[in-house]
Amino acid sequence: MYDMIGWAKDLFPIPRSLTGDGVRETFKYLQTINPEITIYSYSTGTQVFDWEIPREWRISDAWIEHLPTGQRFAEFSDCNLHVLGYSLPMEAEMDRAELLPNIYTQPDQPDLVPYVTSYYKDRWGFCMSHIAKDALPEGPYRVHIDSALFDGELLVGDALIQGETERELMFSSYICHPSMANNELSGPVVLSALLKFIKDCIPQPKFSYRFILVPETIGSLAYMSRNLEQMQEHVACAFNLSCVGDERAYSHVQSRYGDTIADIALQSALIGKENVKTYSFLERGSDERQYGAPGVDLPLCGFCRSKYGEYPEYHTDADNFDVVTQQGLDGAFQVMTTIIKAFELGLYPTVAVKGEPQLGKRGLYPTISQKGSYSAIRARMDVLAYSDGSNSLFDIANRISVPLDIVLEEVEVMLAHGLITVSDTATGE
Amino acid sequence: MYDMIGWAKDLFPIPRSLTGDGVRETFKYLQTINPEITIYSYSTGTQVFDWEIPREWRISDAWIEHLPTGQRFAEFSDCNLHVLGYSLPMEAEMDRAELLPNIYTQPDQPDLVPYVTSYYKDRWGFCMSHIAKDALPEGPYRVHIDSALFDGELLVGDALIQGETERELMFSSYICHPSMANNELSGPVVLSALLKFIKDCIPQPKFSYRFILVPETIGSLAYMSRNLEQMQEHVACAFNLSCVGDERAYSHVQSRYGDTIADIALQSALIGKENVKTYSFLERGSDERQYGAPGVDLPLCGFCRSKYGEYPEYHTDADNFDVVTQQGLDGAFQVMTTIIKAFELGLYPTVAVKGEPQLGKRGLYPTISQKGSYSAIRARMDVLAYSDGSNSLFDIANRISVPLDIVLEEVEVMLAHGLITVSDTATGE
Amino acid sequence: MYDMIGWAKDLFPIPRSLTGDGVRETFKYLQTINPEITIYSYSTGTQVFDWEIPREWRISDAWIEHLPTGQRFAEFSDCNLHVLGYSLPMEAEMDRAELLPNIYTQPDQPDLVPYVTSYYKDRWGFCMSHIAKDALPEGPYRVHIDSALFDGELLVGDALIQGETERELMFSSYICHPSMANNELSGPVVLSALLKFIKDCIPQPKFSYRFILVPETIGSLAYMSRNLEQMQEHVACAFNLSCVGDERAYSHVQSRYGDTIADIALQSALIGKENVKTYSFLERGSDERQYGAPGVDLPLCGFCRSKYGEYPEYHTDADNFDVVTQQGLDGAFQVMTTIIKAFELGLYPTVAVKGEPQLGKRGLYPTISQKGSYSAIRARMDVLAYSDGSNSLFDIANRISVPLDIVLEEVEVMLAHGLITVSDTATGE
Repeated sequence: MYDMIGWAKDLFPIPRSLTGDGVRETFKYLQTINPEITIYSYSTGTQVFDWEIPREWRISDAWIEHLPTGQRFAEFSDCNLHVLGYSLPMEAEMDRAELLPNIYTQPDQPDLVPYVTSYYKDRWGFCMSHIAKDALPEGPYRVHIDSALFDGELLVGDALIQGETERELMFSSYICHPSMANNELSGPVVLSALLKFIKDCIPQPKFSYRFILVPETIGSLAYMSRNLEQMQEHVACAFNLSCVGDERAYSHVQSRYGDTIADIALQSALIGKENVKTYSFLERGSDERQYGAPGVDLPLCGFCRSKYGEYPEYHTDADNFDVVTQQGLDGAFQVMTTIIKAFELGLYPTVAVKGEPQLGKRGLYPTISQKGSYSAIRARMDVLAYSDGSNSLFDIANRISVPLDIVLEEVEVMLAHGLITVSDTATGE
Repeated sequence: MYDMIGWAKDLFPIPRSLTGDGVRETFKYLQTINPEITIYSYSTGTQVFDWEIPREWRISDAWIEHLPTGQRFAEFSDCNLHVLGYSLPMEAEMDRAELLPNIYTQPDQPDLVPYVTSYYKDRWGFCMSHIAKDALPEGPYRVHIDSALFDGELLVGDALIQGETERELMFSSYICHPSMANNELSGPVVLSALLKFIKDCIPQPKFSYRFILVPETIGSLAYMSRNLEQMQEHVACAFNLSCVGDERAYSHVQSRYGDTIADIALQSALIGKENVKTYSFLERGSDERQYGAPGVDLPLCGFCRSKYGEYPEYHTDADNFDVVTQQGLDGAFQVMTTIIKAFELGLYPTVAVKGEPQLGKRGLYPTISQKGSYSAIRARMDVLAYSDGSNSLFDIANRISVPLDIVLEEVEVMLAHGLITVSDTATGE
Repeated sequence: MYDMIGWAKDLFPIPRSLTGDGVRETFKYLQTINPEITIYSYSTGTQVFDWEIPREWRISDAWIEHLPTGQRFAEFSDCNLHVLGYSLPMEAEMDRAELLPNIYTQPDQPDLVPYVTSYYKDRWGFCMSHIAKDALPEGPYRVHIDSALFDGELLVGDALIQGETERELMFSSYICHPSMANNELSGPVVLSALLKFIKDCIPQPKFSYRFILVPETIGSLAYMSRNLEQMQEHVACAFNLSCVGDERAYSHVQSRYGDTIADIALQSALIGKENVKTYSFLERGSDERQYGAPGVDLPLCGFCRSKYGEYPEYHTDADNFDVVTQQGLDGAFQVMTTIIKAFELGLYPTVAVKGEPQLGKRGLYPTISQKGSYSAIRARMDVLAYSDGSNSLFDIANRISVPLDIVLEEVEVMLAHGLITVSDTATGE
């Protein structure tokens, strides 16, 4: 429906980090898709809860030159993962032994360049494939890192869409990862598509919507340091979107107790998908850590296709467009829009008659009764049976093990025949 | 205890349907066993909740005659399943090609005559074994269905026994199936035996009892359309009896949430039985659909031996007295009477002393203490341990995995020794 | 930490029973370790709940003499299990056939002398290995049991340590078993070590402590007959200690509903131990039967290494110091002291900041972020994540599957950094 893969490919080369020009450029691009995105600045040194906004990092170029031959290694211009995230500037000649401790590799994936950062401790360094590191000839070398760490700003963005009620659906993702496709361009592009979808397809939304784009951890904390009370008051259901672009799995990272409406909604929307994985909060590792922390307690869970840390290309230069596809992004988009549609439809259906309705006279039931004739309309009967006002659409889908989108279709049919009513809140039982 | 198999054999040949003379004749027979049964009439066209009472169906005879040979097929007089339930009258000559679409078969059981109905859409038709249909020679044929559909009445019956309290145990079954033994003569004959048992064996019942005999679906809806408020107020525990006559299994079809006292009671009464099957409400298919619908919400579950749809003879002419036996019926009767006895005994036992009672001085405990001597009276000790006023007899049986009838025996011994008291309501914890 | 095995070996030869000089001598020895132990006397015939204090039993000597040869069998002076517990005195000559019915054996363990008692019915008898019984030559025999049953007293002991609050941790064990090591010298010696530990290591305890030493069943009932109301008011968490001396397992005998804080605490303290066994209340057999009875309802569960009845030497003369070791006793001691430390630390931690704290700046988090760097401090992050005021230290350990002692260490670190506060009661969620 939206050219998410095109957006992701446009954004791919930009060298993003917690801060810096790459983030500015990324926001500028995303605002061409959704001009509603507003940018907020936090100055270096600002306290956000227990943390402090770090210095801004500017990275322009970096390489290692083998002086005897002039051959260059780990060139930033080839791949922006080659420089350690938040690396100090460095300009020096040194021999191989001095150089090696500053080269980071992933020995268990020896042909890949790992993504490594040192945001909160001063270091300089490069990232290389383990094979390339081992093959480095004897020196001497010239090391060149044209970076700068200075008092500047950290940027976060949001977009708010006002609905009939103050109750919000919230989606959050990242704009801090350099050139990796699933983690993390998939998140911001699916989020951008969702934002556009609301505007395009739900002209008068019942719910309000909050879309957040931040650098991981420090960004969500910064955002919440200004907005937490409002969020705690209004957010009805929230998702952290990360690694939502491949085709291999659908993953649910549960909230702290696995019992929020976000958990229940996501579970229901994943019924019938291939390779659904449910991870407990003990396996968290994304901003559900902040949004779900004690004292924050937003009704949020994490949504991924293949979860961060669980696919082989994660945090390496292999996380590219062999991993992320339009079909993969569409799968994630469809799951989130189905949940949005359920909220907009009215969450709690109640059957309007006592006993089963006579579906046959409405053409909704087989007119011949023979062994097996009932199973054909089993989902329809089960949606009706649990439409007692106490179950949300998500609860019903989970209880009867029918995908949420099918439940929505059945409820729409029943609504059209006046057989059920819907309410935004639980009414029965 | 009661000649249920004899009653069932007497009733077998009567051609029952939703309405008609077969139902009248069936009620007349059942009233000879229990004169308390009262019949209520609902006129064609009467609205009952979302449904309307259908026309009455009279069926006198039906056959297909092969004109060249005079051979007759699908004769109603041989087997009343041969005519499509609620078939329109038909008197015509036609060739084989015209006839075939009006012949219903069960291709996966090619030698059996299936039971098929078309209550709510006008059709004419016959039911035959798939083999017999295939073997029909070229025509022409004469089709004869001497039936009538006309404004008449639908009949339901009930029997009420007044106990000390208004709280009711309720049992419901069907009088609408033609010649099939398990589904459904087993239900009405076990129900009749239970009604007789109350009168014969519980002269002053604590609970009131409601027995209901109806045509499936429309009958229970009709009955509830007049009695629902009273039922919702009084019914404490209810069972829908269907297919309770074979010896192959004991089946529990759970209520909508599987948590009513009927569910808990039935579960406890089935402990230790061979081949116990528990089906969720998602596998319902009998009048638990109506009694358990949202807005009705009676504390009812379904009880079967082999559940409808789960045994090979279901809804065919093979559902006969090879399937249903006195022993099968007795098994169902025993389960229901054990539950009745528990209600009548007083549901919530409370131990009358602090700490364990000294059973030894009452001859209720081994006097030699050696390895293993405790296990012999384990059930007794466990009944006592959970007699804390918070657990019903059913809860206790389920918790300690001891059949309800054994729990009843132990409680009776303890009552006789003054070691426990019983209450109709939960008192402790 | 304490020479529990030495204490047990000192106590081993004493012939204990429900009553008698062996109990007096045992208490005297235990008072040398903990002079706080106070002894209470209950006279024969005193009613305690549903029971009556039995006569006192004095046993001085017993043997069977084969008159033709003068050979003696089943000599009390060899092993005090040889005489049936509470045996009547006997002085008679008889032939083999008359003797045999009074000899108790354990046929499935033919080479062991079983422990058998007949407390509440008058009998005389001996216990022998099945092999030895079978080998008894033809008589005549002289039977000599120098015992006496007379109106006397039954003794129980307790020790109370007053803490800041009236809320108590309670530990109970037995002083009624003759020469068997695991069942039951392990219980009283671990209990004695715990009592000593409180005095030695927790000079100003927050909680009060109650230690109880009783003969099984009748003793706990006697003790409660005088103290139940106070116990019900004050006891916050209690353990029955029995068979806590071998090295083969850690066993948890659950309370009636398996949901007391004692259950939750014990479960958490056993995480990560080898061969942890959880038994439901249905498998009880020690004084959890009395302390956990309806109307008593103390928050108590049973704690064992290898549970009574579950190890081959149980209730035989093979239950000796091949079974019980200092290491086995230490394992039990460590589990109980970890639970005590958790209560004394403050049970409910609450994180003091919103969002995750910045552990890196405190040296509590890796400063390099690369694939896998998070898992190293997973337990720390998980303790923080569930420190929301609603979870006890036990709940947290159970939820994150980390042993209680590790959770305590992490909480102590966090306390030291001011990152959490602790409370004695649940405050959040």
